[in-house]
Amino acid sequence: MRIDRARLAESMAALGRIGETPRGGLNRVALTDEDRLGRDLLVRWMKEAGLRVTVDRMGNIFGQRLGTESLPPVFMGSHADSVPTGGKYDGQLGVLCALEVIRTLNDRGTRTRRPVGMVIFTNEEGARFQPAMIGSGVLAGKIPLEDAYNARDRDGLRLGDELERIGYLGPEPCVPRPFRAYLELHIEQGPILEEEGLPLGVVEGIVAIAWSRVTLHGVQDHAGPTPMRIRHDALVAAAEVVRGVREIPRAIGGDMVATVGRLDVTPNIPNAIPGRVGLSIDLRDPADANLDRALSMLDRVVREAARKEGVRADVEHYWRVPRTRFDREVVGAVEAAAQTLGCGHRRILSGAGHDAQYMAAICPTGMIFVPSRAGRSHCEEEFTALDDIEHGANALLLACVQLAESRA
Amino acid sequence: MRIDRARLAESMAALGRIGETPRGGLNRVALTDEDRLGRDLLVRWMKEAGLRVTVDRMGNIFGQRLGTESLPPVFMGSHADSVPTGGKYDGQLGVLCALEVIRTLNDRGTRTRRPVGMVIFTNEEGARFQPAMIGSGVLAGKIPLEDAYNARDRDGLRLGDELERIGYLGPEPCVPRPFRAYLELHIEQGPILEEEGLPLGVVEGIVAIAWSRVTLHGVQDHAGPTPMRIRHDALVAAAEVVRGVREIPRAIGGDMVATVGRLDVTPNIPNAIPGRVGLSIDLRDPADANLDRALSMLDRVVREAARKEGVRADVEHYWRVPRTRFDREVVGAVEAAAQTLGCGHRRILSGAGHDAQYMAAICPTGMIFVPSRAGRSHCEEEFTALDDIEHGANALLLACVQLAESRA
Repeated sequence: MRIDRARLAESMAALGRIGETPRGGLNRVALTDEDRLGRDLLVRWMKEAGLRVTVDRMGNIFGQRLGTESLPPVFMGSHADSVPTGGKYDGQLGVLCALEVIRTLNDRGTRTRRPVGMVIFTNEEGARFQPAMIGSGVLAGKIPLEDAYNARDRDGLRLGDELERIGYLGPEPCVPRPFRAYLELHIEQGPILEEEGLPLGVVEGIVAIAWSRVTLHGVQDHAGPTPMRIRHDALVAAAEVVRGVREIPRAIGGDMVATVGRLDVTPNIPNAIPGRVGLSIDLRDPADANLDRALSMLDRVVREAARKEGVRADVEHYWRVPRTRFDREVVGAVEAAAQTLGCGHRRILSGAGHDAQYMAAICPTGMIFVPSRAGRSHCEEEFTALDDIEHGANALLLACVQLAESRA
Repeated sequence: MRIDRARLAESMAALGRIGETPRGGLNRVALTDEDRLGRDLLVRWMKEAGLRVTVDRMGNIFGQRLGTESLPPVFMGSHADSVPTGGKYDGQLGVLCALEVIRTLNDRGTRTRRPVGMVIFTNEEGARFQPAMIGSGVLAGKIPLEDAYNARDRDGLRLGDELERIGYLGPEPCVPRPFRAYLELHIEQGPILEEEGLPLGVVEGIVAIAWSRVTLHGVQDHAGPTPMRIRHDALVAAAEVVRGVREIPRAIGGDMVATVGRLDVTPNIPNAIPGRVGLSIDLRDPADANLDRALSMLDRVVREAARKEGVRADVEHYWRVPRTRFDREVVGAVEAAAQTLGCGHRRILSGAGHDAQYMAAICPTGMIFVPSRAGRSHCEEEFTALDDIEHGANALLLACVQLAESRA
């Protein structure tokens, strides 16, 4: 049994037109009109594939196919939102491969023992509403529903209100369900599979992630007549923080990464000394203990930068996801599928967070990676070759069926 | 002859309510609805004071009072736009003191030999449309009218369109006129007068100013799975530029100041490595030669920061105003007025750009400074005591009358 490569490519092209950017990337940020249009198309396809579709109170969309027995189902899934200038593979590909697996089972009239289903999670990216992976986070009981609803975007719009506005505040409770397993196919977003010439990654787990917010309060003043000696420039202090954050992975070594992705200056005009700067800090490491060390170093970096420029600093470590180890049986099913397909593969650790990270807290979970050209993602240049995608989707199919038939 | 302090305070309060911020500052950015409302009120007051009001093609508003002879007039003026979170003194005070001088002349039925007038210049701040001082710059023939019209704000709106939208694209040509003199009262925006306990500054000139724009093009990628070794982070390079700019005044010494006031990150989300960063650089020095040195240093700073992080840099030095020396006779008239008033004063150089800088290119020009509390401006805390303002307005009155009566 193999998936239909042409049909999958066609669906990728159709969904990729919703929120397409002029340069061929994707702008389908969570809970925008484009997100709604993308969801509408997916729901139509899911219904056409005979799935029973439900939406929960976080806007997570579930579609389930009957098994021969009424047992906990095997679910596949990912997310359909993108970053503002993202690509057409991150998230969307996992959702469409899940759909393709179900369509393939339908083509063959295959009835699996356990039900098989697919899920589309809300706001995985965290580009508009923080934190990321909020839909699966609430489902797994790790983020309170009310906190999720109260997340606000830059314009002050509430996640709960926007969910309702686009028509995806569903009636189903968003709580853990009895899943036999959760499987997610995703692009690697890093360079390893491409560098090693392998089409498939058997994902063993996900690094630990910590997000922090730093606000520096300086003294806003005129850029002309204010002598250097009396300045307290929030942006000068912020520049020290950016430099200091870059040094953290060098000090800790290994595979730690550290990023300042967002920096907002107030009032942000050429002739005023910046009075306030907000920064986001993203720290990741395979080991939770290294993340603890990194957060202490971040505190020191901020304290020192603030002291040097005479500004006040607020630091908030507001989101933390521990190192995730995927289920041995699910990882084994993915590996067996790759072997059956005879395609090159390796075990790999994910440097990106995924909904699978939260799902792992409530059911046996695993992931499949396909290569990212030049390791790039979260950008319009994101690309994965269809040959690689085909291997990945077939591995998803085989692993899903194996788990759905399992006696355990 | 002295101005009416209570009437001036009342006008300051009334105009200050248009665009007032919750914290008592001012948000009346150029060519917004608030700017229009402020202009409307000023035009009404100018007409009530018997002035003949005209508007030129840059939206500069002129009001003229007859003299006994038809000679080139003495004009007073400033601007009525503010930065987004500015104060109620920067600009507005000079306009209202000019109006108060005219009202005082009216009270006494004084007919000066030469006509006396007041002018309100468009977009002095440059907060929304760059460069700053654009209304006086076009008037003085230093900025082409078409360039000014084509300046765009962050939302892509054109200055020319916004001028028309608020109803201030006037019919008068915006070209040099034969002025006998131009006098501008303004807050100092620096700490010197307050530190020395003097209510009045006799401004001798304005420092040289250069504005540059730097764009750093890195490689946008995912903040998680992208190893540190393959990153080209535009914000890391930008942080080096901010640090390097801070070092320039230290290297050059004297009264040079250097500021990065604006910094825009793309895509500016927590989990993407910044792909592009734009920065504004504001450099000022009393000596043009020092500014030349500073601009060379800036080029080196940017080149080195870009090289180190492996990003591409575009540098544009797009605006330069040379050191301005005010007219000896006009400066003398201000000094004589201060002496007549018996108030403490000193000669001072302006660290801020003003419309007077462009006016000095087409007519004898001078300025009067009043103190700024803690030297602060371009912020909501901006404040000048009414006692000081009264001294300044009276000096403006006396200097204006002296120049309007002069035989030269």
